[in-house]
Amino acid sequence: MARKNAFYAQSGGVTATINTTACAVIETARKHGNRIGKVYAGRDGIIGALTEDLIDTSKEPAAAIRALRHTPGGAFGSCRYKLKGLEESRAQYERLIEVFRAHDIGYFLYNGGNDSADTSYKVSQFAQKLGYPLVCVGIPKTVDNDLAITDCCPGFGSVAKYVATSIREAGYDVASMARTSTRVFILEVMGRHAGWITAACGLAQDKDGEAPHILLFPEIPFDQDRFLARVDEIIRKHGYCAIGVSEGVRTPDGKFLSESGLRDAFGHAQLGGVAPLLAQLVKDKLKQKYHWAVADYLQRSARHIASKTDALQSYAVGKAAVELAVKGRSGVMPIIVRKSSRPYRWAIGVAELKDIANAEKMMPRDYITADGFHITAKCREYLAPLVQGEDYPPYQNGLPAYVKLKNAAVPRKLAAFKI
Amino acid sequence: MARKNAFYAQSGGVTATINTTACAVIETARKHGNRIGKVYAGRDGIIGALTEDLIDTSKEPAAAIRALRHTPGGAFGSCRYKLKGLEESRAQYERLIEVFRAHDIGYFLYNGGNDSADTSYKVSQFAQKLGYPLVCVGIPKTVDNDLAITDCCPGFGSVAKYVATSIREAGYDVASMARTSTRVFILEVMGRHAGWITAACGLAQDKDGEAPHILLFPEIPFDQDRFLARVDEIIRKHGYCAIGVSEGVRTPDGKFLSESGLRDAFGHAQLGGVAPLLAQLVKDKLKQKYHWAVADYLQRSARHIASKTDALQSYAVGKAAVELAVKGRSGVMPIIVRKSSRPYRWAIGVAELKDIANAEKMMPRDYITADGFHITAKCREYLAPLVQGEDYPPYQNGLPAYVKLKNAAVPRKLAAFKI
Repeated sequence: MARKNAFYAQSGGVTATINTTACAVIETARKHGNRIGKVYAGRDGIIGALTEDLIDTSKEPAAAIRALRHTPGGAFGSCRYKLKGLEESRAQYERLIEVFRAHDIGYFLYNGGNDSADTSYKVSQFAQKLGYPLVCVGIPKTVDNDLAITDCCPGFGSVAKYVATSIREAGYDVASMARTSTRVFILEVMGRHAGWITAACGLAQDKDGEAPHILLFPEIPFDQDRFLARVDEIIRKHGYCAIGVSEGVRTPDGKFLSESGLRDAFGHAQLGGVAPLLAQLVKDKLKQKYHWAVADYLQRSARHIASKTDALQSYAVGKAAVELAVKGRSGVMPIIVRKSSRPYRWAIGVAELKDIANAEKMMPRDYITADGFHITAKCREYLAPLVQGEDYPPYQNGLPAYVKLKNAAVPRKLAAFKI
Repeated sequence: MARKNAFYAQSGGVTATINTTACAVIETARKHGNRIGKVYAGRDGIIGALTEDLIDTSKEPAAAIRALRHTPGGAFGSCRYKLKGLEESRAQYERLIEVFRAHDIGYFLYNGGNDSADTSYKVSQFAQKLGYPLVCVGIPKTVDNDLAITDCCPGFGSVAKYVATSIREAGYDVASMARTSTRVFILEVMGRHAGWITAACGLAQDKDGEAPHILLFPEIPFDQDRFLARVDEIIRKHGYCAIGVSEGVRTPDGKFLSESGLRDAFGHAQLGGVAPLLAQLVKDKLKQKYHWAVADYLQRSARHIASKTDALQSYAVGKAAVELAVKGRSGVMPIIVRKSSRPYRWAIGVAELKDIANAEKMMPRDYITADGFHITAKCREYLAPLVQGEDYPPYQNGLPAYVKLKNAAVPRKLAAFKI
């Protein structure tokens, strides 16, 4: 294939290390100047391709691209926008190819979760059908750790390190206050469907009696009486109780617990916040003082406490994606393959996009203890390597020094397109 | 004065660096073996003294005490328990002296906020009245930064670094998502009365347009219309809006905003959480997607991102307290004196406990912009040095390695005392 430009876009919820992958893509592409011309990034993800709103990354100096490695968020903008099926959204797929043709784009690199793998797969099929030469490579990313086939997802290890560190630290705090004040601390973490992030909280507990004492997973239906009995038992035994809870915890009838309780002054259901709801329960039923925290975006943007393993893997998948692309491998995604847990050894493998698209990897039941309230040794063995190593960003004036790119637009060549 | 034992206790809400101070107290006392015998710590603060529940810190090896320097929480337990006036609570003051006499305690070192300074002062007065030789030295600590006379409070700089880092990071996240998803992010931070922690969020904004765009202080009555207009204006201008809000924000009639809105399913006011309330407002009135986080204990226990300046000052006040004690200086507290802001130079000074007791240092009005929504250059100049420098804890298996002490009890010599 002749020298072609590459299109790169970030999709879905961002992570502390998706820019690490972006850094790898651009740095690696720059090393393959004989095959890849410029890397154009989609402004706000795939929307940038549809609207011909392309960013010319060649305008960024090497130092700025290097700084992406340690910068959270999505440097080019991400989006929550899913292309539908080929028949339903034919005009959009045609538009993509039109934009790629206008800008001599021969590589499509799409960095996201399972929806994005699906989009990449469909784009590759459509281009083939049209006879447009386009190499489509997906690149994994998601804090939810729910992609199929890959052993873990870039972005997850850093969230895992953040939540485990946070609940360990808060545990030390609550333990000191328990005699006369707070006895129950609740940390709400992300995970609508899969309990991977909640499970990572469990890494903070090295010994019985340490925080967290209870974990509530989306995979285990919430049983109020069992929960309260367990909190009570732990307070009696250890003096305090630290709880990690997934935002996606559900009642036995399958509804989100967070939507079951609180109403605003007008009677509307309050959106979000399972932690305050559990806190209220602890207060009403056990008469215990509580504190609660909702980490929300802090957990997935906490680049200051990124896992080195995660940063290395996030870089490696970006590099591998470009290497696959220049080899003409289309319809694939680089993945993380675990060779061994102790000592931890991993390598980059390759999966078919169609096998990853729209699949969801849930927590195996044997990663959760029989009583449903904690993680097993097997789960620890899986999770522990992913948080290994520190990868501090540089600091300036006491705060992490993150980069903002110029994000210069590529001049438009086509008529406007309404999305 | 002959060689005497010392009593040390931690009081009130703990911080990421109160154990740094404890480390300094014990290490410094060990260097003054000619004047100080053992350091006995109160288990759960002053309650440990009243109940004769003393911890023998001499049982801890030097390495464990050294590790306190980087361990969050309160290693001996803290408490929220205030001794009342000398007349009202005479029996308690008598009991304290009885316990001190029984254990040959000649030094009273009390590590806390303004309530604790008050207690230290009263204990010193009472001992004097009784003719019991007791050197009473207060040691400052509070994340609220609201102690009088001292330029800043040990513990505050680390919270400041945490909240500024967190809102900067979340700002990068929201900026990436704003095109199709979240446009408003709200971080709730501590501060019931004084807006120092909220102000620290403002340090994250280096340039106009960066996060945080709006700060809501307890010092400025909340005006819903002005707030919503400002959020709307910022979204139009910058595409997204990051907000730092103090838990203590009040309505114009002086009520906590957090208590004004949400009700649980039974109509009870929801406890805590001004962030979800503002989020609901943004959704209802501006129809914008939002995310919110409540940092709660995470902010004051985040030793993993402690400020080096804060850690040095926290150690320095502990060391100075012991040095003052062995010189027989009673009724005083070591404080931080600022010599210069640029370059930052500070020294340890000495204040009278009676001048610190029960006073509260609010944010000066000229630290807040005229419109009430951000901090001024003057405020930045004050805050910036306090977050300088990193002071990472050691890590083991990917997580911060914090110490748990043995906390061996000193054998009791007296009859039980009911508090």
